[in-house]
Amino acid sequence: MEKAVYSLLESFMLSCMKDSAHDKEHVYRVLYNALDIAKTEVGVDYDVLICACLLHDIGRKEQFENPALCHASVGGDKAYEFLTAHGFDTGYAEQVRHCIQTHRYRKNNRPQSLEAKILFDADKLDVTGAMGIARTLVYKGSMSEPLYSVLPEGRVSDGEKDTEPSFFQEYKYKLEKMYSLFYTKKAMEKARERQQAAIDFYNCLYREADSAYKGGRAELDRLLSAK
Amino acid sequence: MEKAVYSLLESFMLSCMKDSAHDKEHVYRVLYNALDIAKTEVGVDYDVLICACLLHDIGRKEQFENPALCHASVGGDKAYEFLTAHGFDTGYAEQVRHCIQTHRYRKNNRPQSLEAKILFDADKLDVTGAMGIARTLVYKGSMSEPLYSVLPEGRVSDGEKDTEPSFFQEYKYKLEKMYSLFYTKKAMEKARERQQAAIDFYNCLYREADSAYKGGRAELDRLLSAK
Repeated sequence: MEKAVYSLLESFMLSCMKDSAHDKEHVYRVLYNALDIAKTEVGVDYDVLICACLLHDIGRKEQFENPALCHASVGGDKAYEFLTAHGFDTGYAEQVRHCIQTHRYRKNNRPQSLEAKILFDADKLDVTGAMGIARTLVYKGSMSEPLYSVLPEGRVSDGEKDTEPSFFQEYKYKLEKMYSLFYTKKAMEKARERQQAAIDFYNCLYREADSAYKGGRAELDRLLSAK
Repeated sequence: MEKAVYSLLESFMLSCMKDSAHDKEHVYRVLYNALDIAKTEVGVDYDVLICACLLHDIGRKEQFENPALCHASVGGDKAYEFLTAHGFDTGYAEQVRHCIQTHRYRKNNRPQSLEAKILFDADKLDVTGAMGIARTLVYKGSMSEPLYSVLPEGRVSDGEKDTEPSFFQEYKYKLEKMYSLFYTKKAMEKARERQQAAIDFYNCLYREADSAYKGGRAELDRLLSAK
C-alpha cells in the first residue's frame, strides 16, 4: 500500500472516531495483530487487510447513537462509499466491505475471505487476556455498570447465572468463551498464551470481593445482635 | 450497635450515594474489611468504627461537583451534623468525624485514633490487588481516559514518566506504591497477599499492548515502503 493511501484511510478513521479518543488505540492494536497473523498465512491481500483493519469500527458512532443499528453493517457501507468516492475500484471496496461487515460475531454472517478471517481474529484477540479484561472494565465504567451483583444471601455472585449487567456477568457470558472462536492457527496460539492472565485476574477479583462479604456479613450480624 | 441505628446510618449513606449505584459496594467492602482488621486489635469502639465506615464517602458528591472540595473534609462535617441532629452525643459524632476526615492520604492530616487507623487501612486495602486494578479501570472508563500513552517512537509507555492521565500512569503513580502505607499488621498482611495479582496484571497488559506496537509498527513500515 502507498503511504499516501494509508494516510488518507487513517485520517478518515480518526475523523470517524473523534468522540472516543482512546478507541483509536484499539484500531492500531487490531491492525498490528492482523499483520502478525498475516505473516503466517499465504496469499494475503495487504491492501484489503490494512484498509479493513483501519476502518473496521467506523460505524461505532452510529450504533452508539442508535443501538438498533449494527456497527459492522453500517461501517462496511460507510467504508464502501468512502473508497468509491475516492476513486478506488468497486471490486476492492467490496472486498473491504465484506471484511468489515463480518468482523462482528454473528452466526449467519461469517467471514469468507482470508482477509476477513484475519480481521475477525485480530479484533477478537483484543478481547482476550489482560487486554480483554481491561477494555471490558473501562467499558463498564463508561456505562456506570457495577463490578458484580450481590446475591440475596449476601454473597458475591460469580456472574454465571446473572441477568443484570456487571463485569462478572460479561466475563462469564462472553470473555471466558472467546478462546475457541478463531479461524487462524496463529490467532488461536496468541489467544491461548493470554488466556491464563484473564482467568487469574477473574479468580483473584472474585476471591477478594467474596471473602470480604463472606466474613464481614457474619461479623456484622454478630455485632448488631450483641445489644 | 443496635440494628435500628445501623439501618438509620445505612439509609443516610445510600441517600448520599444514589448517583453512583456501584460505589455503595465499595462502602460495604470497606466495612467488612474493617471488621476483619478490628478482630486483631484490642479496644476497638465498634459503634464508632461501623458508623465511620458506612459514612466515610458521603462527601464524594460534593467533591465531584466541585473538585476544589475534599470529600473527606466535607464528609466528616456532614456526618457530624447528621449524627448530632439525630440525637447522638457530640463526643461520639466528633470521633466519627475524625475517622472520616483522616481516611484520605494526606501528610498533614493523619489518623490518630485506632478506629481512624482501621478505616484508613480498610479503605486503602480496596485500592490493592485485583480490586484496585478493577476499580481504577472502571474509574478511567467513566472519565474517558485511555489505558496508556504511546511514545513518539511508537512504543507503549509503561506509565513511569507520563504526565498525561492514563491507567498505566495511575498504576505507576499510585497503585504500585500502596503497599507500605498501612497502620495495622493485619491490613499490611492482606495487602501483601493481594500484591502479586496487581503486578501480574500490569505486566501482562503492558506486554500484550507493547508487543503489538513493537512488531506491528515495523511490519507496517515495511509494507508501506514496498510500493
